Amino acid sequence: MSAKPTFPLRYGVLLYPGFEVLDIAGPIEALNTLARMPDQDGFSFKDMSFSYHARTIDAVTPTPPRPTDSKDKFPASFADAQKYYPTYTFSDAPQLDVLLVPGGLGSVPWHDLPAEVEFIEKVYKGASDHQPLQYLISVCTGAGLLANAGLLDGRRATTNKAAWDSITHLGPRTHWVAQARWVSDGNIWTTSGVSAGTDGMIALLSTIFHGHSDIMDRVVISMEYNRATDSDNDPFASINGCVDVPPQGQSAA
Amino acid sequence: MSAKPTFPLRYGVLLYPGFEVLDIAGPIEALNTLARMPDQDGFSFKDMSFSYHARTIDAVTPTPPRPTDSKDKFPASFADAQKYYPTYTFSDAPQLDVLLVPGGLGSVPWHDLPAEVEFIEKVYKGASDHQPLQYLISVCTGAGLLANAGLLDGRRATTNKAAWDSITHLGPRTHWVAQARWVSDGNIWTTSGVSAGTDGMIALLSTIFHGHSDIMDRVVISMEYNRATDSDNDPFASINGCVDVPPQGQSAA
Repeated sequence: MSAKPTFPLRYGVLLYPGFEVLDIAGPIEALNTLARMPDQDGFSFKDMSFSYHARTIDAVTPTPPRPTDSKDKFPASFADAQKYYPTYTFSDAPQLDVLLVPGGLGSVPWHDLPAEVEFIEKVYKGASDHQPLQYLISVCTGAGLLANAGLLDGRRATTNKAAWDSITHLGPRTHWVAQARWVSDGNIWTTSGVSAGTDGMIALLSTIFHGHSDIMDRVVISMEYNRATDSDNDPFASINGCVDVPPQGQSAA
Repeated sequence: MSAKPTFPLRYGVLLYPGFEVLDIAGPIEALNTLARMPDQDGFSFKDMSFSYHARTIDAVTPTPPRPTDSKDKFPASFADAQKYYPTYTFSDAPQLDVLLVPGGLGSVPWHDLPAEVEFIEKVYKGASDHQPLQYLISVCTGAGLLANAGLLDGRRATTNKAAWDSITHLGPRTHWVAQARWVSDGNIWTTSGVSAGTDGMIALLSTIFHGHSDIMDRVVISMEYNRATDSDNDPFASINGCVDVPPQGQSAA
């Protein structure tokens, strides 16, 4: 018997009210496309599984909870019909290999998400009945939730460039990289805002299938996607005037 | 009283089993971002509305129906947890101004979608109780449904470049443009595959807000999106060896 090559099979996506649609949909498109590819180089893509994870099993929409001090900023009605149904609550989540944490207006600092932060930490580190994640990836302001979980301490990371100041303040022990479409540090990946999640997920999968580059080439061509291949090139850093934020107590390089 | 400038307010998205996630999610991201912008130049973006439309109100997933002659091509399980709930069935749809028709494996020619084709035609042309659409936009193989409805007859259009032959055959009176990220002809817009829908929707909205270019500039920056601005540049046409298909009886230019 020859052993099949292994790769992460169980992909989960966190949901909370006010998540950003493309933060999850770009990466999911890459995963859906991969999952329907014929076997290649011994990889069996049809073994992949997908699940949504949230605090309860009730519908989640991209409509953010309205902050009490900002009555008119986020009109509620437009995205109300865009309902996403969690597959599992936090308490009954099965083993995952990769968790994606989106950003969005529902994750900006004035919305406290303690249950979500606790879930991310527990899934990442593993627990008595679960192995640790193989990879954790945040998109956009989702990095703020990773920072709140303490998972970015001592690491390099990036986040949404329009929310740069508010999110980087959440991770005082992190080196926040401004000129980055995405950053990987160990098995934690963080991407810049919204669309950058697609590039980040494709880059993560390209790392997973290192040495089999035609697998992700075919996914990208099927998506007809003009992917960013240079992680250090982010035009939105200078548009928003973002500069690196080193860990507190260190001066900028 | 000064009149507010008008623009299309009511956005609908068609759903059917086996639609492609990013075909709808990229354009929806642009719309969601626009809809939460503060009023500008007299435009009231919070007046925008969104709805999903399908044959029944049952959940729709990106999992395509399995063609009887291809048992193993589309493993069913991965996308099964990605459930989308229609806002309206075809028979109770309210007035729409813009309808987006996605592509996906569920729309390739061996899946007949007569109810969807009839809905597209009726909504586009209007009926006794509805005004015609202001704009119709298809993404990817969604152009095949527009062709089946006869709406691309005598027009220029484009579609997914990997499905070029099978979709262009559905529109023998159409000039199919290979080297196109998107094509507009009158008030019907067609885009190339998957990711191209995001560029096409942004281009359509840029046309709608012609003379107010900073509106869509701000949307694109908020999305941190590296948009394609040249509709005639499509690297995926040559990758897939696509050439123009003129209307039958005419020779290629």
